[in-house]
Amino acid sequence: MREVIVQGIGQTRVEEHWDRSLRDLATEAGLAAMRDAGVDRIDAVFVGNMLSGQTARQENLGALVADWMGQKPAEGFKVEAACASGAAAFRAAFLAVASGALDAVLAVGVEKMTETSGSETTAALATAADADYEGMQGISFVGLNALIMRRYMYEFGWKHTDFGGFSINAHANGARNPNARLREPITERDYARARMICEPINLLDASPIGDGAAATLLLPAEKVGTGPRPRIAVAGSAAATDSLAVHDRKDPLFLSAAFHSSRRAYAQAGITLEQIDFFELHDAFSILSALSLEACGFAERGQGPRLALDGAIRLDGKLPVCTQGGLKARGHPVGATGMYQIVEVVQQLRGEAGENQLAKARIGLAQNIGGSGASIYTHIFKVE
Amino acid sequence: MREVIVQGIGQTRVEEHWDRSLRDLATEAGLAAMRDAGVDRIDAVFVGNMLSGQTARQENLGALVADWMGQKPAEGFKVEAACASGAAAFRAAFLAVASGALDAVLAVGVEKMTETSGSETTAALATAADADYEGMQGISFVGLNALIMRRYMYEFGWKHTDFGGFSINAHANGARNPNARLREPITERDYARARMICEPINLLDASPIGDGAAATLLLPAEKVGTGPRPRIAVAGSAAATDSLAVHDRKDPLFLSAAFHSSRRAYAQAGITLEQIDFFELHDAFSILSALSLEACGFAERGQGPRLALDGAIRLDGKLPVCTQGGLKARGHPVGATGMYQIVEVVQQLRGEAGENQLAKARIGLAQNIGGSGASIYTHIFKVE
Repeated sequence: MREVIVQGIGQTRVEEHWDRSLRDLATEAGLAAMRDAGVDRIDAVFVGNMLSGQTARQENLGALVADWMGQKPAEGFKVEAACASGAAAFRAAFLAVASGALDAVLAVGVEKMTETSGSETTAALATAADADYEGMQGISFVGLNALIMRRYMYEFGWKHTDFGGFSINAHANGARNPNARLREPITERDYARARMICEPINLLDASPIGDGAAATLLLPAEKVGTGPRPRIAVAGSAAATDSLAVHDRKDPLFLSAAFHSSRRAYAQAGITLEQIDFFELHDAFSILSALSLEACGFAERGQGPRLALDGAIRLDGKLPVCTQGGLKARGHPVGATGMYQIVEVVQQLRGEAGENQLAKARIGLAQNIGGSGASIYTHIFKVE
Repeated sequence: MREVIVQGIGQTRVEEHWDRSLRDLATEAGLAAMRDAGVDRIDAVFVGNMLSGQTARQENLGALVADWMGQKPAEGFKVEAACASGAAAFRAAFLAVASGALDAVLAVGVEKMTETSGSETTAALATAADADYEGMQGISFVGLNALIMRRYMYEFGWKHTDFGGFSINAHANGARNPNARLREPITERDYARARMICEPINLLDASPIGDGAAATLLLPAEKVGTGPRPRIAVAGSAAATDSLAVHDRKDPLFLSAAFHSSRRAYAQAGITLEQIDFFELHDAFSILSALSLEACGFAERGQGPRLALDGAIRLDGKLPVCTQGGLKARGHPVGATGMYQIVEVVQQLRGEAGENQLAKARIGLAQNIGGSGASIYTHIFKVE
């Protein structure tokens, strides 16, 4: 296997892009990543996207984006793994470059969610769950996560307010990220009084949808010269699955696919947990932050909220989390989210994270979750 | 790059599977491929599918199929490239095994199309075209191909009946394929008198939709022992794109993505055209057979129909085409089609093609087309 370098990154701001279509967003982020890498021809573009067929009535995104970027006949396909589509597209690109078959490969994550009605979006997002056994009951995606959160609180004795630290941290960091969808800090009081969405999940437990695109340009290490900028290598790339339906899992409070993929990624990178400087985790709902930290080994079972309560996840903490706002504040354009996470890891490792720059950032972790824990991608990046 | 072997194949019959869901079909074909390969654990499953989000309200197919097959936590994602989703999933699997990252990788193509109404299916298929510039005009996918066929007939002086040989050949072969959707031979008279769909495309120019799944199990050559059965190697794997919108192409009568991907595949395999024994081409419409033969170099520009008229494409001809019925008679469950083509190539190369077995089958070509020529995958397989 060839070593793979993330040589270029690009992103649009996450917001309601009324003046830009799906293809415009993908093209803007993709071209930014190519410029950043100093590459003007690509061999392939893999597009992470979940909803375009349902909401934009547009598939065949690989060819569409290649054409719109002026890169045909570069090959390309769409990769879908629900809300983990972004990281899945990154993994497809990584495998292509690692194989030796392709050299310059672009991975773009893109989603446009704000042009459809709320009920349409809710129905489209429910396709991440098991349509025949969950969706047909009428349960929404937030409903499934609410069941998990309630059970978690019951099993481990937490109050709702104990989860507030995750959202407060995310908003604090998002307020300093010019690409974030929500740029207002929030307080404990805001969190406690937020409007209920699906008990116990309130508005400040849930990440906002949005339109956006993020992109990474991958090259084999052998084709990347040494320059003034640090080279960012893919040190670990792993994925695992679990049942789509929450009721089919042995333990609905444990993200087994996060466990499997993280352990494999640690082994590939040859690192221990302690060496990870920060973690871009998938805080679609605050309960997911706790479960992700536990499955990845950063907290004991049932003790995830402790890391938020004691400040360990803040920029100056032991394990900074969601350093650019996470899904909660940067926003969650679902098929793009995993790519935003990777772009943000690279920003930190390069020392280009602006006001959110960490003092120490040599090894970064990104984890992207599709469905309520069904498709999980874990990536580790390091400065060479 | 590691050499990759197609060690297992599986398929369901293409028909209206009222008693089987999307996941049932994928599981049946996937498990058949695993049994055929003698493999009981896989590292990954990549699922080629175009329409599940729109028609079954089900995404996240990678995890779904891994779970239903009893293979979690094996990783997996869905690959979409319109009607080329099947071959695109195969390519993702090929790259994963070639890279050295994964060993036993299953590629499944699956589609369930007959549970939705005709107008819903037509609208869903139109997402393969450019939604903003073609779809919004109200043109269907068959409409786009009808425009291309009419122009082709005008430019090169062909009559409609000159295309009949493609469909007659496909039906003759499909009649002897137990997995085919349409198993009735047709005559020149049937072809000439078939009901008009979208002039000049009549019912016997167009492939039927259907439900079905096909699967291949890939292994690195280094892990495949020698046995009594011939080893089938992936000798060439290439893809290319063109504009989605037909009006954006310099020459709408030339499949440039077929040209680029086929030439790259020939070079990888180190072969010339003359060495190819048979060709599973993408006859979604009879005009596409002609264009595919021309772009791949088997016929001069504008002369594709000649190969059908003079019998060259029949099982006993110089270049047998659609040996198990092609899309026209085996059926076109869109996201599965590319995988059916590859399964059929492997059947021929192994000598397991039943009544359609070719006398000489050492090197086989498969080409899968997504959109009206936008995403094209070309694969070459050979007996080792």
